[in-house]
Amino acid sequence: MTLIEMGQRAKEAARFLNTAGTFRKNDALFAMADALVTRADLILAANEADIAVARENGMSESMLDRLTLTSERICAIADGVRAVAALPDPVGETLGEVRRPNGLRIAKRRVPLGVIGVIYEARPNVTADVAALCLKSSNACILRGGKEAISSNRAMAQVMAQALEEVGFPAGTVQLVEDTSRETATEMMRLNGYIDVLIPRGGAGLIQSVVQNATVPVIETGTGNCHIYVDAECDPDMAVDIVINAKTSRPSVCNAAESLLIHKNAPVAFYEKMRTAFIQKKVEVRGCPVICDLWNEAIPATEADFDTEFLDYMISVKTVNNIDEAIDHINAHGTGHSECIVTENYTNAEHFLDCVDAAAVYVNASTRFTDGNEFGFGAEIGISTQKMHARGPMGLQELTTFKYIIRGNGQVR
Amino acid sequence: MTLIEMGQRAKEAARFLNTAGTFRKNDALFAMADALVTRADLILAANEADIAVARENGMSESMLDRLTLTSERICAIADGVRAVAALPDPVGETLGEVRRPNGLRIAKRRVPLGVIGVIYEARPNVTADVAALCLKSSNACILRGGKEAISSNRAMAQVMAQALEEVGFPAGTVQLVEDTSRETATEMMRLNGYIDVLIPRGGAGLIQSVVQNATVPVIETGTGNCHIYVDAECDPDMAVDIVINAKTSRPSVCNAAESLLIHKNAPVAFYEKMRTAFIQKKVEVRGCPVICDLWNEAIPATEADFDTEFLDYMISVKTVNNIDEAIDHINAHGTGHSECIVTENYTNAEHFLDCVDAAAVYVNASTRFTDGNEFGFGAEIGISTQKMHARGPMGLQELTTFKYIIRGNGQVR
Repeated sequence: MTLIEMGQRAKEAARFLNTAGTFRKNDALFAMADALVTRADLILAANEADIAVARENGMSESMLDRLTLTSERICAIADGVRAVAALPDPVGETLGEVRRPNGLRIAKRRVPLGVIGVIYEARPNVTADVAALCLKSSNACILRGGKEAISSNRAMAQVMAQALEEVGFPAGTVQLVEDTSRETATEMMRLNGYIDVLIPRGGAGLIQSVVQNATVPVIETGTGNCHIYVDAECDPDMAVDIVINAKTSRPSVCNAAESLLIHKNAPVAFYEKMRTAFIQKKVEVRGCPVICDLWNEAIPATEADFDTEFLDYMISVKTVNNIDEAIDHINAHGTGHSECIVTENYTNAEHFLDCVDAAAVYVNASTRFTDGNEFGFGAEIGISTQKMHARGPMGLQELTTFKYIIRGNGQVR
Repeated sequence: MTLIEMGQRAKEAARFLNTAGTFRKNDALFAMADALVTRADLILAANEADIAVARENGMSESMLDRLTLTSERICAIADGVRAVAALPDPVGETLGEVRRPNGLRIAKRRVPLGVIGVIYEARPNVTADVAALCLKSSNACILRGGKEAISSNRAMAQVMAQALEEVGFPAGTVQLVEDTSRETATEMMRLNGYIDVLIPRGGAGLIQSVVQNATVPVIETGTGNCHIYVDAECDPDMAVDIVINAKTSRPSVCNAAESLLIHKNAPVAFYEKMRTAFIQKKVEVRGCPVICDLWNEAIPATEADFDTEFLDYMISVKTVNNIDEAIDHINAHGTGHSECIVTENYTNAEHFLDCVDAAAVYVNASTRFTDGNEFGFGAEIGISTQKMHARGPMGLQELTTFKYIIRGNGQVR
C-alpha cells in the first residue's frame, strides 16, 4: 500500500473516530489490550527475530534491553492501554460560548486533530502506547517505527488492527508503515492533506531531520539540555539532592539535568557536599576554570560541553556572578525543556520563573518531574520543546484542536 | 543588516518585552500611533513613490486602491493601534494551577511566543496592524512586506521604530526586512533559533511557498473555499439572504462563500429566488448538470471550479441527494475555513456541526462573520486554516503560548 493510500484510509477512519463516542472507543481499547495479551506468543516470536538481527549487528546491551519484549512487558503494555481507556475523553468538550451583540452564539468545541503521524525509534512499546492515545483522542494514526523493531511493530500492529476490526473500527484507525527506508520517512513528512500533525519521538538527529524535511505541521519533542541553577541563598542539602536526582536517577532521559550553574557565593557547604556526591555517584564533571580550580578531579569544559545533552553520568558545571548571568546562559544554551533554580530567595525565585524561557520552569524541585504522569495527565505522547500548540508533556488534550460552532438565526453582515 | 543579526536583535527585544508590563507596552503603542499621525507626510511621500512604480508596472485599480494611503487612512491605522492598546493584555494570565500529591504546585502561565515573523503582500496597513498586535502580546516581530509597498513599509517601520526608541524600547521590537527578494524570504522561512512562529498573510501562492520551504513553525492562514449548504427544510428567504451576503458583500475576502450546495428537495421557492438574486447581483453561476438544466444562464462547472477560491462575483453550485453528500463534499473540497448549513431541522443542524471539519461551522448565519472583530477578539492577525495551535481568527491570545511554573520544596523523583 502506498503512503497516499494509507493517508486516505486514515482520513476515513478519522471521520469515523470523530463521532465514535467514548463507550465505543473504550471498548476498542480494551479489545486491543486483551488481544496484545492473548496473542503475546506471536509478538514475542517476532521480537525474538528483531533481537537476533540486532545482536548480529552488534547492538549495545542497553539498546537491546529497550528493544526486548517479555510476557511481563507485554502485560504492562496492555495495562497501559487499559489505563488510557480509563482517562477522561477530551473530545467534545465546550471550552466556552459567548453570545455576540447580533445574537450569534459562538462556542469553542474541542475536536480531534484528525490524522497524527508519529516517527519513532527502537522501542516497540511505543507502537501500542501511541495507538492507544491517538484512538482515545479520536485521531487516526500512521506509525513509523525504527527498522530495529520492525518485526515486533508489525506483529503488534497486526494484533491491534485485527482487534479493532472485530469491534467494527475501520482499518485506517491504526496503521504501521512497514517500509522503514529513509525515503519513505521523508515522504511521510511531506504527506500534506493527509497528516494533520507529525510528532517525531527520538534523538536529536531524528528531530532535526523532521524539522528540516517536513512540510506537514510538526511538534518537536524531547531534546533536553536541562539546567539546575544553585543560587547564593539556598539549602545546601536540598540543592545537592535535587542535582543528584536530576542527574543520576535516570541519566538517559530528556528531563535529566545536563548542566549545573552555581552562584559564586553559594554556601561553601554546597560546593563541598556537591563535590562529594558527584564523586560518590561517579558523575564526570566538565567544569569552568573556577570549578576546575576548586575540584581538581574536574575536566576542563569546552564551549560545546555546555550545549551537549550527555544522557550519561556526566555534567557541565559553571559558576556565575549573579542570577541574570544564569538566566542568560540558560536562555542561550537550553533547549526549552526543563530548567530549575534552587533558592530560598523569594525575589530570585519569581525572577527566574518570569525570565527563563522553557516548557517547565522549577523552583526547588528536580527537573525529572517533567512527565505526563507526574503532571497528572495520566499518559503522554511526548514532551514538546516548541512553543506552538503544545509545550511540555503532551497528554490527550494536546492531541486535540478546536473548532468554532456558530449558531445563528439568519444573521448577515 | 543580515537576517541573523535581525534575529538576534529580535530575541533581545523579546526578552525585554516578556517583562515590560502592560503600562509600558500601552505607552509604546500610543507613541507609535501618535508618530504615525504626526509624521504622516513622510509616509504619504513614500507611498506616492510606491504608487508611481505600481502605475508604471500596470497594477490593477483594485490593487492600487489597496496600496494607496491617505491622511484619513493613516489616521484610521493609528486608531487601530490605539484600539490594540485598549485590549486586555493576554500575557501573564495563570490558566490553572494544580497541587500534585507530592506537594508540587504546577501552574500553566500564558507567555509570549517570542519572535513572530510575518510575510505579507501589498497592503501597507498590515505593517502597523501586525506591529501593534505583536507588541501588545509581548512578541518581537520581523516583518517582510511585498515589494510593491516597500517604500511605504520602510517609512512606517522607521516612524514606529523611532517612536519606540524614544520610549525606551529596544531596536529589535519591530523590524522590517528591507530586501524583498525571494531568496531573503526563503532565508526568513528557515531562520530556526530566531523565529518562533511564522505567519504568512496573502494569497494561496504565498501560503504554499511558505508551507513548502519553511523549517520554522508556521501558521497557515487565509485560503477560504467556503460553502453554504441549503438543506431540504429551510426558510427560503433566509437561505437566499445568507448566500447573497456570503457571496457578494465583499467577494475578495477569504470568508466569502465560493460554493453553494443545495439539497435536491430544497423548496422550489428557494431555487427560484436564488436564481433571481444571482442574476440581479450579476453573480456568474458555475453549475452541476441539474443546476444547468434548471437555470439556463448557468455555465457548466468543471471539477476544478469546486476547488476554486474565485474571490469574485462567481460561485459554483451543485445539488446533493442528502446532507451526508454535502458534508463529504465539503470535507473533500473545503479548505477548513468557514462552512454553513441553512436548515430548520434540528438533527441536521447538529449533524453538520459535528461532522464538518473546519475552523468555523455555522448554522443559519453568513460565513462572513469569521473575523476577529466579529468574534469579539478586538483585532486579528489572520485566520488560521490549520489545526495546530490556532484555528480560525487569531487575536492576541493566539499570539501567546504557555509555560509550566512548578513550585516545590525539595521534591525529588
